[in-house]
This record gives sequence, structure tokens and C-alpha cells, in this order.
Amino acid sequence: MKKIALFPGSFDPFTVGHESIVNRALPLFDELVIGIGVNQDKHKLFPLDKRVEWIKALFKHEQKLSVQVFEGLTVDFCKKINAEYVLRGLRTSADFEYERAIGQTNKVLDEGIETVFLLTRPEHTFISSSIVKDVFKNGGDISKFIPEGIKIDV
Amino acid sequence: MKKIALFPGSFDPFTVGHESIVNRALPLFDELVIGIGVNQDKHKLFPLDKRVEWIKALFKHEQKLSVQVFEGLTVDFCKKINAEYVLRGLRTSADFEYERAIGQTNKVLDEGIETVFLLTRPEHTFISSSIVKDVFKNGGDISKFIPEGIKIDV
Amino acid sequence: MKKIALFPGSFDPFTVGHESIVNRALPLFDELVIGIGVNQDKHKLFPLDKRVEWIKALFKHEQKLSVQVFEGLTVDFCKKINAEYVLRGLRTSADFEYERAIGQTNKVLDEGIETVFLLTRPEHTFISSSIVKDVFKNGGDISKFIPEGIKIDV
Amino acid sequence: MKKIALFPGSFDPFTVGHESIVNRALPLFDELVIGIGVNQDKHKLFPLDKRVEWIKALFKHEQKLSVQVFEGLTVDFCKKINAEYVLRGLRTSADFEYERAIGQTNKVLDEGIETVFLLTRPEHTFISSSIVKDVFKNGGDISKFIPEGIKIDV
Amino acid sequence: MKKIALFPGSFDPFTVGHESIVNRALPLFDELVIGIGVNQDKHKLFPLDKRVEWIKALFKHEQKLSVQVFEGLTVDFCKKINAEYVLRGLRTSADFEYERAIGQTNKVLDEGIETVFLLTRPEHTFISSSIVKDVFKNGGDISKFIPEGIKIDV
Amino acid sequence: MKKIALFPGSFDPFTVGHESIVNRALPLFDELVIGIGVNQDKHKLFPLDKRVEWIKALFKHEQKLSVQVFEGLTVDFCKKINAEYVLRGLRTSADFEYERAIGQTNKVLDEGIETVFLLTRPEHTFISSSIVKDVFKNGGDISKFIPEGIKIDV
Repeated sequence: MKKIALFPGSFDPFTVGHESIVNRALPLFDELVIGIGVNQDKHKLFPLDKRVEWIKALFKHEQKLSVQVFEGLTVDFCKKINAEYVLRGLRTSADFEYERAIGQTNKVLDEGIETVFLLTRPEHTFISSSIVKDVFKNGGDISKFIPEGIKIDV
Repeated sequence: MKKIALFPGSFDPFTVGHESIVNRALPLFDELVIGIGVNQDKHKLFPLDKRVEWIKALFKHEQKLSVQVFEGLTVDFCKKINAEYVLRGLRTSADFEYERAIGQTNKVLDEGIETVFLLTRPEHTFISSSIVKDVFKNGGDISKFIPEGIKIDV
Repeated sequence: MKKIALFPGSFDPFTVGHESIVNRALPLFDELVIGIGVNQDKHKLFPLDKRVEWIKALFKHEQKLSVQVFEGLTVDFCKKINAEYVLRGLRTSADFEYERAIGQTNKVLDEGIETVFLLTRPEHTFISSSIVKDVFKNGGDISKFIPEGIKIDV
Repeated sequence: MKKIALFPGSFDPFTVGHESIVNRALPLFDELVIGIGVNQDKHKLFPLDKRVEWIKALFKHEQKLSVQVFEGLTVDFCKKINAEYVLRGLRTSADFEYERAIGQTNKVLDEGIETVFLLTRPEHTFISSSIVKDVFKNGGDISKFIPEGIKIDV
Repeated sequence: MKKIALFPGSFDPFTVGHESIVNRALPLFDELVIGIGVNQDKHKLFPLDKRVEWIKALFKHEQKLSVQVFEGLTVDFCKKINAEYVLRGLRTSADFEYERAIGQTNKVLDEGIETVFLLTRPEHTFISSSIVKDVFKNGGDISKFIPEGIKIDV
Repeated sequence: MKKIALFPGSFDPFTVGHESIVNRALPLFDELVIGIGVNQDKHKLFPLDKRVEWIKALFKHEQKLSVQVFEGLTVDFCKKINAEYVLRGLRTSADFEYERAIGQTNKVLDEGIETVFLLTRPEHTFISSSIVKDVFKNGGDISKFIPEGIKIDV
């Protein structure tokens, strides 16, 4: 049976931290879907189509990887794409408490879903989408936080 | 002197975690008031009257327990109902830091108020109202997170 | 039924933080037993008989309070003295994670034991027996960390 | 070369915790600028001109201290005022994780900026602007959380 | 290329938490080696040969799993058995900070080693080998913390 | 008045993390004393004279810096060398809770001592003396964790 993993997030924007998690997770799975969750609540900075385009361009040579947009529960989208694994990166202990709650909730909703965590690299620990957004909104240069393959063209 | 405790919260919704805290705290106090705090700031998912109704129905056979709605400071409501204890459940260390700040602030505002904490049960540690709300808004089944006695009829 | 609580610890030494927890917990219970756990593993700085004597002297006018020494599991000692409550103070989030593990383990060992937590006062948050011991061993003055009623005479 | 530090924040309101950090940091630097960051995103409770006025009045006798308003990135404002140090107080471990991310991000944006942290005093650990705001909005007395020199006149 | 993972630990004793991690990790890898690290420093409660025997008996029907004893660095043992993955369970945020330091150190020592984390189940969060040891040493019943397939016969 | 800071520790061994803290703190103070605390309790891996020698060699060109050995309380040694500042690096939130307790205790022992914290760099966050010791004892190469100027010759 194929090992399919979903890497869910809003990726607003996709950072060097996300890129490193994806690259290190790829050998572990047969297929990896980067799922951009669409959620009415949260205001996003970068347009959805740009976020999709940037990530697709970055991984265009990875056969095992695709980028999809989803609405609703992560576990429901997993079922739809036959993913048994949810991939997440862990940066800090605050992160961990949040991720543990989500992961354990998902397991109640669907016992068959396992969350697999990788560590961010030390030099990426402080980089989160929300901090990158703050820098961007205040006119700062975010190029050091974004994969080299992505050009922010908005 | 009667030992009266206030269990304050927005209970949006009341979870199995809250239910367990209440059931274990009841023997410790002579009276327990579940106080639903009304706060203009925070948008609530479930209507106030439903939240009151659900909790009242759940504990209708508990003589020592009542459900009330309050506005303003928790310590002011304590004074009004002669409660010297505030009851809170502790789930995680993030919870703890938040609860400690609230509890120590309350003690400055009214030296006579003592906050008493019980632990959530291990199987409830990840269940918070906000995570249950997220599941509900995304169309998921929240029945495993809600007391059996409560039927979500909204 | 009488509400009996055990406040277990090694109290090596008993600090102003412990004193404050005891004083604030006394109104909540009908009886409070300060239980000095004897544990072969841990090297203690102050002799057991001194620790007993100091705490007894401090609370000699409290009718509801007694000081006892115990070996073995906390839950077994609770059963012996008919205590249904274990009292603990919470200082920091590191504390909390440790206390949660102990409290949840105790509940597996004896479903009838409830752990009740009070917060240390802000000005006592950093005071632990182990830090007081360190100061003492390095020749420092520990009188500000110890209840006024206790004279360290060793 | 003069040691200039920026103490950035929204100070909504300025608390006894902030006051203590400033007083203890003053001897360490040649100049200390309290910088009130203006940020479109966050709704503030107290008007900007009042916040400026309160802090100026409080420190009117401190020759080394000035109060300024800034927009945009903290590191850009540092450059403008020749500050090589950012001053921050640390209250809790949740605080710390947040401050570490900001501090490490600032260092990527400008390698020449060093963040210097002082501890809040134990009795101020639970006092944050947001908790003071909550008390104020609920009609509570915030005078114990605010420097004596500040009269909240709004 | 075969995906080989090492699950290192002292397993003193092997708990229901460890068992759950192993069972959920098995589908993810082609081979899983439970490696009992031998370390002169730490005093162990249960004899090494018993620990090996218990774990072997528990998983005797798992073709993909073996139990081995190792000395020295985890990364060196990984190289010896061709493991590119280290498997670890995460229980609490204290755990996480410790595991992150170990995982990031291992990556400096050998860039080719990836640490993969799974969450313990909520009902196992408080169960650690050290707490089980404490219960055992104090004469308590540890059967609820140990896999059903293991009989503690020492 | 001269600003003198003490950087206390056991430095067993001195790491790249310590080196970075010292280099970034030097401009802030007029004098910086690296104080190697001698403490009967803790077993050390590297001999005291080697630790002194390594650090002295590393900073031999820094006029403002000296290396000293001390026994007893940190605040007592501060008084002896006229240091009003204690310098410490912060790596993780576990670190922070420990450092806060020490720093607040020192302030009770001597109101005139201020602890000043700098952040470790992201790529050093996981490097602690104890993890370096573990690698060394297990035969690993610790050169990446140690300043280039230090040759471990024991």
C-alpha cells in the first residue's frame, strides 16, 4: 500500500522552514501532498493562487509531490486523497502544545490518521509565516526567510 | 461558613473536560456556580441561551449547582454571589501560564479570592472549546467532545 | 464525610511558599496533614526530625493540621489517613508538567484521589526547596525564604 | 561610542513592570529611547497621545531618556536613532519563546542589533498590558498595575 | 532503498506508551530496530537481559522488528545498522525541548540521520519509565503502565 | 562608575554558544569576568585548570576580559569583584524558567545585582555543555560545538 502524506498549512507564505521539512520528508513517503487549507476565518496576506503557484514552481521537478487546495477538516481531506499520514514541522514548545492538540483531535476524528513530525533546522526555528508576514507588512526584506526558488511578485 | 465556588468560562461549548472538572469539584464545595461570562469582545459560536440551557439540563439533578450569566470582572461576580473560590481546570503548560496570570491578577483585585485548580483527565487534555468550535465549523462530528447529556441543537 | 487533604513533600526545607499554600488551603478542608515523604533515593540536607519539629512548631495553634512522616506511595498513605485530596502548590510551567504527571499517575493508582492545586504567590514563585538548599550550602542567608516562625538551628 | 537602547512596545498602557525595566536598564546605557510602535493592525485601548504624555511625565527628570513614536520595523527605527540595543523585559516562558523569535528575526534583518533582556520582578510577573486592559474594560481598578506617576485620565 | 528506523531508549521498563509508538510506526518503515542503549552513567532498575527478553517476547510475531543492545552514540549505531531514521515519541513540551536538542545534535554529528516523532496517545501522556520506576520502587502495582504481553518477573 | 559584569558558569566545556555570548556582551560592559564556579556537588568532566587555560587562551587579546575561579554564592563573588551585572545566555524556555529562578533569588540576596540576558544564536540553541559532554563520553567528535581557538587536549 502506498504511503501518502498530507502537509497541510496556509503557507502564507511558504518559508525556508517549510521547504526544509518537505525536502527531508520526501524520502519517507511514496507521495506527498502539500495541502493549502482554505479557511474563511483567517485573513490571508498573499492571494491563494499566488501561494499555489509559488509552491508548484518550487517543487516542479519532484514527481512524488503535488499541491492542492482544500476546505473543511484535514482528516476529511486525508480520506479523499487516501493519505494516512499528516506531516508537520516542530519549531518550539509552544508549537508542540498546539500541534499535539490538533494531532490528538485528528486521531479521535479518524483513528487511521497518524501525524508525523520532523524538527525544523536550528537556523529556521524562529521563522514562522506570521513573523515573515509582519516583516513584509512593515516594508522589510523577507528574501532570507523564503526559498530561493520563490520570487514574491505581489 | 459555606464554601461557594465559581466556575467561570464562556463554555462555547461546554465540553467533556468541563463536565469532568465540575463532577470532581462538587464534593469539595457546598455550592458551585457555573458562571457564563458575557464579554462584548469575543465572538461566540453558540447562542448564550443555548449554552445556559445545555449546562442546566446536564446538571439538573445536582442540588449544589446552579448556572448563571455574568458581565464584568470575575472577582466582582464572586463578591455578588459570596464565592470565595474560583474553580479552573488545567490542561497544558500553556494553559497554566495563562491561568496563573489571571489567578494572580484576581488576588490583587480581591485578596479574599482563592483560585483552586483540578487537572483535566489525560484523555481530555487536548479538548478545548476552541478546538471543538473549529471541528464544528468545518463540518466535523463533535459528539465525542461534548457530554452525553448535551445535544447540540443549533 | 470529612474532607481530609494530604500536603506531601520532603520540605527540605519548608519555605515561605509552602507556608502560604498551607494557610490558604486550611479553610478549604476539615483536616490537613503535612506528610513528609521519606525516600531512600534522595539525599536530604536537613535531618528528618528537625524538619518535623520546625513545621510542627510553625503550625502548633492550627487545630486542623498535623505533621506526619510516611514511606511508600502517596496514594497508599492517603488511604491510611482517609485523605481524598492531595494538595500541591504550582509555581512554574515546569512544575506544572511534573505535577500533572504525578497527579494523573495517582489517579490511575487510586481513582478516588483528587489533586487540588493552589498558586504560589507571585513573590514566592522562584522559591523552591532546592534553590534554598543551594543558597544554604554556599553560605548564604536563607532567612528571607523561610517562614518567620522557623529558626534553622542545624 | 554611545550606547543607545530602544525599548519598543505599544505600552497600552505602560505598567509598573515596564517602569521597573526602564529604571533598572537606565544605568546600563548612555541613552534610552522608549519607542511607541504604531501598527495599523492592532486596536489600541488608550489614545497614542495619552500614552506618550503619560510616559513623558513619568520620566521627565531622566536626562538619558526620551519618548518617541515610530512606524515600520523596529530595526529600521534603531538605525534611525543609532540604537544598537533593543531592550525587553521577560516575564514568562511563553513571553520568552515569542521574544526569542522576534530577537532572532531582528538579528537576521540587521546583524548589528543586539537584544538585551532583563527579568521582571517577581511581583510583576503576571502584569501585562493586555491583562490590565481587560481589567480596565470590565470596570476594575487598575491603579495597582500602573506607575504611581501615571494618572489614567481617559 | 530500505527504510530502516532505530527506536533508541533505555526502556527501564518498556511501557504501554513505547508499545503504542512502535505499533503505529511499524507501517511507516521497512525495518524497525528497538535499540537498548547501554550507558555506564545511569543506574538502571531492571536488568538488561530482562529488558531485552520482555521486548522480544512482546513483538515476537513482528517480522520487521528486532531488538538490539548498543553502546556509544546513537548516530554511530544508526550507521552500523544502516538506519537513516531515529524514531521518538513525544509526550510533553518538556520532552520536546529535550528531544529537539538531541535530534539537532544528531544532525550535526551525521547530516544523514532524520528524527521522526510520533505523539503518544492522550491516555499515555503522563506515563514515563521514570514514573513507573518510582511506583515500582514504592511497592505499587505497575501493571496498568506496562504492555499486557510483559510480565515483570524480577 | 565602571560597568563590570560576571559571566558565571562551570563551562565544562566552554562552547561556541558561550563564545558568542561573550563576544556580543563585550561592547556593553567596561569589564567582563568569566567566573568558573567551583561546586563540590557536581562532578565535572574536564579538569578545572584545563577549563581556565582554554578560556584564557581563547580571549587572550581581549583587554576587558579576565577569567577567574570562584567558590560560594555568585552574588558574593560579584561583590568581591565589584560586578553589578550577571551575564547569562538564554537558549530555550526550560533554560528561561531556571535562569529566572536564579536571577530572582540573586536579587533577593543582593538588590544591587542585575542579571542581563542575551539570546544564543539560532544555530547554537541546542548546544549545551551537558550535551557536548555526552557526545564526548560516547566517543563522538565535539569540535563543531567548541570554539575554534580551543583544542581539547585531555
